[in-house]
Amino acid sequence: MTAISNKVINRLTLYHCLLKYTCKGNSFIASSKIADLLDLDDSLVRKDIALCGVLGHKKQGYVVAELKKSIEQKLGFSDRKEVFIIGAGRLGTALIHYADFKDYGIDILALFDNNPNKIGKEEGGKRIISLEKLPNLISRINIKNIILTVPPYAAQEVTDYAVKYGVRFIWNFTPTVLKVPKSVTVYNENVISSFMQMQNSKNK
Amino acid sequence: MTAISNKVINRLTLYHCLLKYTCKGNSFIASSKIADLLDLDDSLVRKDIALCGVLGHKKQGYVVAELKKSIEQKLGFSDRKEVFIIGAGRLGTALIHYADFKDYGIDILALFDNNPNKIGKEEGGKRIISLEKLPNLISRINIKNIILTVPPYAAQEVTDYAVKYGVRFIWNFTPTVLKVPKSVTVYNENVISSFMQMQNSKNK
Repeated sequence: MTAISNKVINRLTLYHCLLKYTCKGNSFIASSKIADLLDLDDSLVRKDIALCGVLGHKKQGYVVAELKKSIEQKLGFSDRKEVFIIGAGRLGTALIHYADFKDYGIDILALFDNNPNKIGKEEGGKRIISLEKLPNLISRINIKNIILTVPPYAAQEVTDYAVKYGVRFIWNFTPTVLKVPKSVTVYNENVISSFMQMQNSKNK
Repeated sequence: MTAISNKVINRLTLYHCLLKYTCKGNSFIASSKIADLLDLDDSLVRKDIALCGVLGHKKQGYVVAELKKSIEQKLGFSDRKEVFIIGAGRLGTALIHYADFKDYGIDILALFDNNPNKIGKEEGGKRIISLEKLPNLISRINIKNIILTVPPYAAQEVTDYAVKYGVRFIWNFTPTVLKVPKSVTVYNENVISSFMQMQNSKNK
């Protein structure tokens, strides 16, 4: 992926959702339609799309299939990204069943847990493996990405382990702030913040 | 909640997580410690905290309990926000078990689904109610907030219903772009975007 800002990434993924679901069955889409549905400026939408190297057709707009494919290329959806989920609780198992991940190149290889009743079972076709085997498997398969869905009290300990054995990206679904070296990226999936931001729009 | 930007809300919720979990048991915390853990500028952290009306003590920093409480007041965690979850699938039920919601004033009253095998059952102490009863219950209880976790193909139809009967805030966990009137706020919980943004930090 060539360097684009996080805001552009966010918008491109929304355009992609729109093309994939809302506009399914349509051949063409105008930038003004995308802008309207997402409450954005038309010129901004056209600028984002230009970054993907797609040209619109006069009057008809963009070819839906072409635009969708170009966004996928720009965002690197075809690059395979191998991921472990740590924590086979409700959220971890909900995520493994999120069928769409595959479409974005996110390949969840396994779940890890320390509950003996869960270890060895399968969820969404993936094995639940003992947490004890995590260090060895991270380094052997050279895993760089983990999704963290453990209880808050276990979050830092698991993070320390994962980082020690080579993980570089932590998608943190726990409500904790993780201490990591500068070389590691944590993305906090801060659901409470999302809700509060939504409510904040009252004050606009 | 007095008007503050979404970026400030996001940071304050992270400080709150930090005080609640990472710093549990500590009496004091310095702004520089918060800044370091979250990879932020110290002056920015102090500015955010000043917005909450909390003063630090020389050398020792802020009183953890006081700072935590002030953030809760600033973000309106004690204001009760009644919410329906629409879609009692894996994600919907994972969310109802997210015990922390109560601490933020988010009161999930019920789940809705159209699967006869689920209707009447309970999840996390909340009843799963038939989707047919949604319009009546939204207007009777005057529900303004919904969490949407239905399959993509059903998202727009459910949204249209909910909006028609008075919903004003939709926390959208489906990967679809929803068409709503200007008076309604949709917050797209765009998980794919989060992952792509995390990966994008490689290019920094």
